[in-house]
Amino acid sequence: MRAAIIGATGYGGAELIRLLHNHPHIQVSSVHSSSQQGTSMGQAYPHLQQVTNLQLEEIEASIIKEKADIVFLSTPPGVSAKISSSLVDEGLKIVDLSGDLRLSDKANYERWYQLEGAPEELLKEAVYGLTEWAKEEVKAAQVISNPGCYPTATLLGLAPLVKGNLVDPKTIIIDAKSGTSGAGRTASAMTHYSEMNENFKIYKVNEHKHIPEIEQQLQRWNSTASTVTFSTHLVPMVRGIMATIYASATTETTEEQLRDLYQTAYENSPFVRVRKQSEFPSTKEVFGTNFCDIGITYDNRTGRITVVSVIDNLVKGAAGQAIQNANVLFGFEEKAGLDLIALYP
Amino acid sequence: MRAAIIGATGYGGAELIRLLHNHPHIQVSSVHSSSQQGTSMGQAYPHLQQVTNLQLEEIEASIIKEKADIVFLSTPPGVSAKISSSLVDEGLKIVDLSGDLRLSDKANYERWYQLEGAPEELLKEAVYGLTEWAKEEVKAAQVISNPGCYPTATLLGLAPLVKGNLVDPKTIIIDAKSGTSGAGRTASAMTHYSEMNENFKIYKVNEHKHIPEIEQQLQRWNSTASTVTFSTHLVPMVRGIMATIYASATTETTEEQLRDLYQTAYENSPFVRVRKQSEFPSTKEVFGTNFCDIGITYDNRTGRITVVSVIDNLVKGAAGQAIQNANVLFGFEEKAGLDLIALYP
Amino acid sequence: MRAAIIGATGYGGAELIRLLHNHPHIQVSSVHSSSQQGTSMGQAYPHLQQVTNLQLEEIEASIIKEKADIVFLSTPPGVSAKISSSLVDEGLKIVDLSGDLRLSDKANYERWYQLEGAPEELLKEAVYGLTEWAKEEVKAAQVISNPGCYPTATLLGLAPLVKGNLVDPKTIIIDAKSGTSGAGRTASAMTHYSEMNENFKIYKVNEHKHIPEIEQQLQRWNSTASTVTFSTHLVPMVRGIMATIYASATTETTEEQLRDLYQTAYENSPFVRVRKQSEFPSTKEVFGTNFCDIGITYDNRTGRITVVSVIDNLVKGAAGQAIQNANVLFGFEEKAGLDLIALYP
Amino acid sequence: MRAAIIGATGYGGAELIRLLHNHPHIQVSSVHSSSQQGTSMGQAYPHLQQVTNLQLEEIEASIIKEKADIVFLSTPPGVSAKISSSLVDEGLKIVDLSGDLRLSDKANYERWYQLEGAPEELLKEAVYGLTEWAKEEVKAAQVISNPGCYPTATLLGLAPLVKGNLVDPKTIIIDAKSGTSGAGRTASAMTHYSEMNENFKIYKVNEHKHIPEIEQQLQRWNSTASTVTFSTHLVPMVRGIMATIYASATTETTEEQLRDLYQTAYENSPFVRVRKQSEFPSTKEVFGTNFCDIGITYDNRTGRITVVSVIDNLVKGAAGQAIQNANVLFGFEEKAGLDLIALYP
Repeated sequence: MRAAIIGATGYGGAELIRLLHNHPHIQVSSVHSSSQQGTSMGQAYPHLQQVTNLQLEEIEASIIKEKADIVFLSTPPGVSAKISSSLVDEGLKIVDLSGDLRLSDKANYERWYQLEGAPEELLKEAVYGLTEWAKEEVKAAQVISNPGCYPTATLLGLAPLVKGNLVDPKTIIIDAKSGTSGAGRTASAMTHYSEMNENFKIYKVNEHKHIPEIEQQLQRWNSTASTVTFSTHLVPMVRGIMATIYASATTETTEEQLRDLYQTAYENSPFVRVRKQSEFPSTKEVFGTNFCDIGITYDNRTGRITVVSVIDNLVKGAAGQAIQNANVLFGFEEKAGLDLIALYP
Repeated sequence: MRAAIIGATGYGGAELIRLLHNHPHIQVSSVHSSSQQGTSMGQAYPHLQQVTNLQLEEIEASIIKEKADIVFLSTPPGVSAKISSSLVDEGLKIVDLSGDLRLSDKANYERWYQLEGAPEELLKEAVYGLTEWAKEEVKAAQVISNPGCYPTATLLGLAPLVKGNLVDPKTIIIDAKSGTSGAGRTASAMTHYSEMNENFKIYKVNEHKHIPEIEQQLQRWNSTASTVTFSTHLVPMVRGIMATIYASATTETTEEQLRDLYQTAYENSPFVRVRKQSEFPSTKEVFGTNFCDIGITYDNRTGRITVVSVIDNLVKGAAGQAIQNANVLFGFEEKAGLDLIALYP
Repeated sequence: MRAAIIGATGYGGAELIRLLHNHPHIQVSSVHSSSQQGTSMGQAYPHLQQVTNLQLEEIEASIIKEKADIVFLSTPPGVSAKISSSLVDEGLKIVDLSGDLRLSDKANYERWYQLEGAPEELLKEAVYGLTEWAKEEVKAAQVISNPGCYPTATLLGLAPLVKGNLVDPKTIIIDAKSGTSGAGRTASAMTHYSEMNENFKIYKVNEHKHIPEIEQQLQRWNSTASTVTFSTHLVPMVRGIMATIYASATTETTEEQLRDLYQTAYENSPFVRVRKQSEFPSTKEVFGTNFCDIGITYDNRTGRITVVSVIDNLVKGAAGQAIQNANVLFGFEEKAGLDLIALYP
Repeated sequence: MRAAIIGATGYGGAELIRLLHNHPHIQVSSVHSSSQQGTSMGQAYPHLQQVTNLQLEEIEASIIKEKADIVFLSTPPGVSAKISSSLVDEGLKIVDLSGDLRLSDKANYERWYQLEGAPEELLKEAVYGLTEWAKEEVKAAQVISNPGCYPTATLLGLAPLVKGNLVDPKTIIIDAKSGTSGAGRTASAMTHYSEMNENFKIYKVNEHKHIPEIEQQLQRWNSTASTVTFSTHLVPMVRGIMATIYASATTETTEEQLRDLYQTAYENSPFVRVRKQSEFPSTKEVFGTNFCDIGITYDNRTGRITVVSVIDNLVKGAAGQAIQNANVLFGFEEKAGLDLIALYP
């Protein structure tokens, strides 16, 4: 299969190129950018010199149609809302890594993103590709909306509890922490090295765009779910997300019962690793991989369950999950191109 | 005034030496260690060469009595439980930076610390020196128990809410993050550079010794307070703590009202800075100082209040607050020796 | 004494404010900026909130004259070349932290800086304030040109060798490493956190502006000195410079002899610490201070001397040395306001 | 082919497991440790859970012979000197990642390592596997001594110059910088996070064990080569080495000529990337890969050549080059299992 990448100069795009480099069935056939046509990937990223000869091309659906079977869009907010329809009309399959197609309610998107939403029709067609919980839909999809990095870690961590009615949804609090690569490649005061190193920051309190995305999926799983508290912090590191999730148990439970529940829920999910008794994952343990590692426990003093879910935000939180979705879509082995061991240390 | 430091080779001890170096009224007269007598501070810490000539001496109450008016104990768990009484008997004032005198219930200490507790009499005498909320007691004290780093950030962040019955205490969740210096100077796998850098870890889930310390103080402030959920994480940085605190409001409120409440509560507290509307503090903004910076907001979607409280764990969370307590005890200006601007960037 | 700071929103300016906050004789009376008039320092830097009420004012020599006795210029290249004369004409003393007045040969400046140089008259008047080696000139100066960060570490490390003819100047190679704060506060791709963390970079090979500054001073000390090789690297940390300096000895020597030489050379220099036998300094050991720590050794296999010199680039390499110069100029104790212990760890 | 790994709990061993996981022709058949028999790799390294079921076994040549065709020794100094002969006697091929077989002169080894050297016979048999310059010897070898991390970066950077007599060997100075993973997994004060972060250190000045290894190879290439100056520094990052290399040119040259020389020298070397005009590599650009990226320039002011050579110390500096050697030895494609794109950012 041939894949085109739109927005290849961002970190998501570069990660797609890294991961697809050793994919047995999918090959990057072209890369596209709205502004840097003619630039080679080796100019945009020195680490790609002598590894790929790809050159950035313009974004034109009919031309892409000639070159690719599937298109990965790794574009800033607002872009795929505008251009996806033309790709779909050409019959191309698309995996959109941006947030544009994630909220099925256009008004909700416009409220949180402050941008014009995608056409209703496109939103209706888009499948929310949290692969572990959407395999059948993904197999049949033409348009896949790839989940956000924070929602991926959060939702994989919450699914068994929320689907099984084991927690009171109104008590859910997600305290999330991310490395800086989630903020993209554009230099800013927020991510200036001298201001970010030896520093721990909180940002967008109660205002993060991933809040409605998390709530929408929880409500699909459990109609009693409503709002959640979700906070985001910036860690002085580049890659990795940890979501520490709190919720009150509906009935008394034990760590052992909870781990059984999770192991059953994910027994056919090669990328979700439920950790051993009393063991909690660190972000580095999934660095560079498509794994989501989950630790879980119950505190009988407070009646609360704590779930700890970690991912590499650029892999399982972006490019890796996009490829996982493509694998499922095309009927390849789910792990194709993603059977990697973490770069540790 | 002359101060002795017991346990001067740890980070808390080194920080006391740094801060007292420019204190107008207190001078370090001797340093003590259980194992390194005869070693100079310049040997233990190259950065202290040619700055101080202090040499480590043995720990002997009657000798310390000759040299000092006040003793700072910056010792591992279990040590001050054993040696404090002899210092008190000599009539010395003490500020204990360890956790040994913080829990007034000996059995509670022994449950959480798995060590023999201090004598009941000593526990009764010890004043819990969260300076902002204990000035009168500190003034009259002979024995001051200096709060833990996490409890300092947490309790300063929660006090106005809990004292004012503005939150339901049963809903309090504290998600705390710390730099590695809180783990001390002893090398370990947990804090080995190659394993800690580019990594974000959670540790001691539901088992941290600071949990009973926080609960004890909340209950003193509000008899309806009971258990809290408190989680601790290790950030790949050296100094700094952020406590992100969540609680359900008892009645609807606004960020403005909350900020008014906090500004009033801390108007006479030179080290607590309530941040401006929509502004949340980062740890680097208090780096090297005795400040506790607090941001606060209310989310009317969820009815929850979020408080963000940051400190430098070695200053306001240890040596700085110890000196602040000594200042209050001796009737010096509260800011003496602590009127510092953060090292930024 | 009252000091004005021009360019107070940069890191050099912020560091002057930090250090002068506790200076016994010098007080910051006004801060100036070419573009942000009306902004308070607390808006520019949250860590300065509630610590200073200074507000940025325009840059107008006659007004500054009313407010200050001395002016610190912490401005980008090219600015003090233009505005210094007007300040000097008002009778103000100035310490210029930029590179504009460091090269006495205007043409040389213009070749390396690619900017119009300062008036010849001003260049003639400017004293190169490497304090340890220029005390008499500084005392008598009206215009002090504060050395660059790299040249400070390098020249303090080389002075005894070059002045004493102990090395062949043509063999001098300086391999220098710096934290990112030397690059200033403006966000850039080079210092974007995601690209700089877990990364070690070399930059401006053979082209750094500090090359002619180092060569000029070496030639003043030793007429046989000519060109040097000087390389600069960016370390994933914020503060600190290490210069590792290599040169061939003119005659066989020993580490002991070299250390004697250095100790004698710097016996009256409170900020230069010659390290013990076989001990070499790390940057963190001078973090936040005005120290320059030096280690030195001789390799009889190669006949080469290695000097290791470390400073905090924002203190001894900028604001600290500027204050040290002001202290000497005004006849204050050299350590006034600078008697600090490193923030360690 | 089946590979056994001795010393699998160190970082070199873990990296072999990571890289061989996707090798098309070599599979890890057993892992061995002197002290942790029975432990699974998932216990030693949580990131290996559910990825490999390997369990540590004892080190016994006759048993290993049953399981493996080749043995990778990733052991501390002194171990392979003792155990290699028994493996060789069993007819096993070995790649030794330790320094024990690198110096062909046993006395030289014992002087620098302060340990008993390997048997002379074994030293004679061992091929120094700097793959790019030893392909024919490696193909025919039974015993391959894998080069040290620093020597790999240094020698690949110097080879074309020294072999071509383009520099005066007596003037060679190598200023090398490494991430902390080169120091191994054992916790120490040197690599304690709180002491290493925001710190830049120099260590083992003129005493590093890699000095004789570098000199030996230079002398093989050019009989006029003698001693070099080689310094090592620790960078606050985990992976990556940069060697900044200085030497005086024997005749005037240009950057263009030098780059032509290097491109020709390495045109058949898939892992050496000579960088473009005026472009110098950063360590992150080879992070996780087997590349050695080289930048080079000439300064006509000083007559000196500067070479900048970067590698990932755990890949090209250890496990990656070991696999590259195994590939050449077995006649596999040189890039088999190593055709990776850097993890960037």
